[in-house]
Amino acid sequence: MAVLERGWRRLISEVGVRFDAPEAQERFRRAGQTVDDDGVVRFDPDFVLEQAALAPSSFTLRARNPERTVRIGGGDAVFGSVAGPPFVRRGDERRDATFADFCDLQRLTQAFDDIDLPTILPCEATDLPIDSRHLDMALAELTLTDKPFHGALFSGDKTRDGIAMAEIVFGGPDAIEETPVLWSVVNVNSPLRYDVAMIDVLVATAERNQMTVVTPFLLMGAMAPVTIPAALVQQTAEQLAGVALAQLVRPGAPVMLGSFLSHTDMQSGAPGFGGPESTIGLLASGQIARRFDIPWRAGGGGLTSSPLPDGQAMTEATNTMLAAFLAGTNFFLHAAGWLESGLVASFEKYVLDVELLRILKEQFAPLVVDEAGLAFDAHVEVGHAGHFLGAAHTLERFRDCFYRPFVFTTSSYERWARQGGEDSVARAGTVWQETLARYEQPPMDDSVREELEAFVARRRRELGD
Amino acid sequence: MAVLERGWRRLISEVGVRFDAPEAQERFRRAGQTVDDDGVVRFDPDFVLEQAALAPSSFTLRARNPERTVRIGGGDAVFGSVAGPPFVRRGDERRDATFADFCDLQRLTQAFDDIDLPTILPCEATDLPIDSRHLDMALAELTLTDKPFHGALFSGDKTRDGIAMAEIVFGGPDAIEETPVLWSVVNVNSPLRYDVAMIDVLVATAERNQMTVVTPFLLMGAMAPVTIPAALVQQTAEQLAGVALAQLVRPGAPVMLGSFLSHTDMQSGAPGFGGPESTIGLLASGQIARRFDIPWRAGGGGLTSSPLPDGQAMTEATNTMLAAFLAGTNFFLHAAGWLESGLVASFEKYVLDVELLRILKEQFAPLVVDEAGLAFDAHVEVGHAGHFLGAAHTLERFRDCFYRPFVFTTSSYERWARQGGEDSVARAGTVWQETLARYEQPPMDDSVREELEAFVARRRRELGD
Repeated sequence: MAVLERGWRRLISEVGVRFDAPEAQERFRRAGQTVDDDGVVRFDPDFVLEQAALAPSSFTLRARNPERTVRIGGGDAVFGSVAGPPFVRRGDERRDATFADFCDLQRLTQAFDDIDLPTILPCEATDLPIDSRHLDMALAELTLTDKPFHGALFSGDKTRDGIAMAEIVFGGPDAIEETPVLWSVVNVNSPLRYDVAMIDVLVATAERNQMTVVTPFLLMGAMAPVTIPAALVQQTAEQLAGVALAQLVRPGAPVMLGSFLSHTDMQSGAPGFGGPESTIGLLASGQIARRFDIPWRAGGGGLTSSPLPDGQAMTEATNTMLAAFLAGTNFFLHAAGWLESGLVASFEKYVLDVELLRILKEQFAPLVVDEAGLAFDAHVEVGHAGHFLGAAHTLERFRDCFYRPFVFTTSSYERWARQGGEDSVARAGTVWQETLARYEQPPMDDSVREELEAFVARRRRELGD
Repeated sequence: MAVLERGWRRLISEVGVRFDAPEAQERFRRAGQTVDDDGVVRFDPDFVLEQAALAPSSFTLRARNPERTVRIGGGDAVFGSVAGPPFVRRGDERRDATFADFCDLQRLTQAFDDIDLPTILPCEATDLPIDSRHLDMALAELTLTDKPFHGALFSGDKTRDGIAMAEIVFGGPDAIEETPVLWSVVNVNSPLRYDVAMIDVLVATAERNQMTVVTPFLLMGAMAPVTIPAALVQQTAEQLAGVALAQLVRPGAPVMLGSFLSHTDMQSGAPGFGGPESTIGLLASGQIARRFDIPWRAGGGGLTSSPLPDGQAMTEATNTMLAAFLAGTNFFLHAAGWLESGLVASFEKYVLDVELLRILKEQFAPLVVDEAGLAFDAHVEVGHAGHFLGAAHTLERFRDCFYRPFVFTTSSYERWARQGGEDSVARAGTVWQETLARYEQPPMDDSVREELEAFVARRRRELGD
């Protein structure tokens, strides 16, 4: 840890972090940091730590359905859907993602209790006009789900649109500033640079006391050196520089230390997810985040480079998801539906990931070891070489004593073959189709919905779409 | 831990463990334990602990190729192939396993350095006569691989045949007793019973100072109560009773505490592998084994109930394999090729499991954090928002800085589709076929081979096959 501590201090003070927006440069200059003509800020590491100490170690993120409100930080963990893919895979079909896919993914996120946070980009809505699609996406996210709102992304203006819509839903400006209702992800332009758009999102989010997830996206070999310690100190320097800016904008603004650390396949040049680099990145990032006592977001559990939701995909997904659990992750982004290094939102993988999540949630629940659990009477009853199927202890508990899968099977071969002999992808396909068929849209006051729609219509006109 | 300690002590002393063989009853009676007319031995727990303390905490298991010799126990981990399946799956074909399949699986185990231990039963040789097939299987294992010998299984007589063959290969009786060369698995007839055949295998192995893996096979709900603490104390009582017998037969005989703890699906009655029960069983069993300072064998990483080597299979396999790593397992049995709750040896899953193993071995290697790894010069060289692909630090390390998969892919979708668009099962199929095509049989002295063949021919005649 001392080597890493020395590493980020040296990096942030000697090489520094470049902030492209004059507003950010000016804030850091006024705070006594050294800013050169190119916008490179050379930080006093102790100043950075003082700023980081202003960030809350845990906080509430409010949902429009109070039962969906979550705690961020401490011992709590929340799970978000995939975000970002331009493509979708539904069964054997892989194609450009559309708004219809987007809405279906929001419906799945609403339907599965295991996923706490929808994202504003479970896939791109490539069939909508680019300047105004964020309005349609935000409206759909807000109306198809009643979970916390990922309203802020892309740019400062679009983030302000998201915040305006949140004000409509959550009771106005004061209400959302009292308890955060919305979150943004700020991806650093690694190495060591924040561009104008990202700074703008960060400022727009922080100034209204909403949650900013400051996330260096580091593929070693491309955006970071090829050694994990170097990537870790770069990640820390980049995270803390962003957190420092957020705290200058509004002391106490809720932030998360984001991590998205994996590697570039040095033969193909493609990103690699799900192997040792991803998991060591997760475990180390969690330890470092706890050092600063700021909630942290893992790049994700469920990551994979596989083009199909097959054995490779689920090996890599399980490996990263389990590592993220072990790493004490507070926010698992991309926890359901990520495929093909994030280029594809897979409906089948979404369902398989939910099964994985349920298994791991059960697995990480503390084991109760007490006298009742020892079942001594059952042993006295059954004795030597009998069986426990009919024991009183079994009959009392058989309904809920074990985890029950909903996609995975323990069927005998013969029974499974009789039922169609489907692999787990095919079975997952049936599940998402049935889930969409059963989906019920959560209620929303007509007046709120009308106000949201009017806002979207007005902004769409202003944006010329 | 105190609850579990009280639990196994009460169980082994008050309910006791039944040993069906008079020989075992007599040994325990002479050692001062209470034995009733049914062969139930009620143990003094402190006697059991004294016996367990005679077992070595680590030892060497010798291979006929000295480079393949392994250490059992301590911080060392060894990996064994699947054992036991009556069926095989090769591609889309699932059928009764044959001796040809058996030999091919031995060849894979020889070819992959990641698998340290072949088994005498990677699948059944259902096309060979049942009374003598153990001779053909032992001969094939000994000649197709040069790794340590799993020569002992099934019965005392068959175990003695395996030992006789080991004597031929390893230089006679004294040589094999000096350093163990062979291992047997003794599966307890749970709950709380050892039958005559298993006692016979245990005695035959221990009296010649070979390695005995004492393994309760506990599916909660059937062979054990439905609560994990009860299964753990039963497992401990059964393990220690077997270890006590082995140490009475030969003080200091090498033994392992085996664990195979999962559950019965209470709806289907089928065994369930790979979920929370399997992994919690692994983690708890590892902790308990360390308490007794005896090497321990995990039921396995790589376990699954899936009928296909698909996403379910690899989720469950990864979950159990990672748990077995975390549990400090000394011997991972069934680490490659297990499918369908152990009924099927899958050639494709064998290959996928090897990829999984390689990932995890890399993942669990200690991370070096030092000044060189911080790559400060690379950061100075690249600065802000460049990339590291051409940095000197990258060029020095790019060949081996990251894990390189051999079945998994990071290819772009377009490239992968051009190459055939195969899922990981199809790609694994290509790998095992190529591996078998490249297989080279390890050398063996002609005189040794002839003596082995003569032994097999003689015993076959004696057995009437």
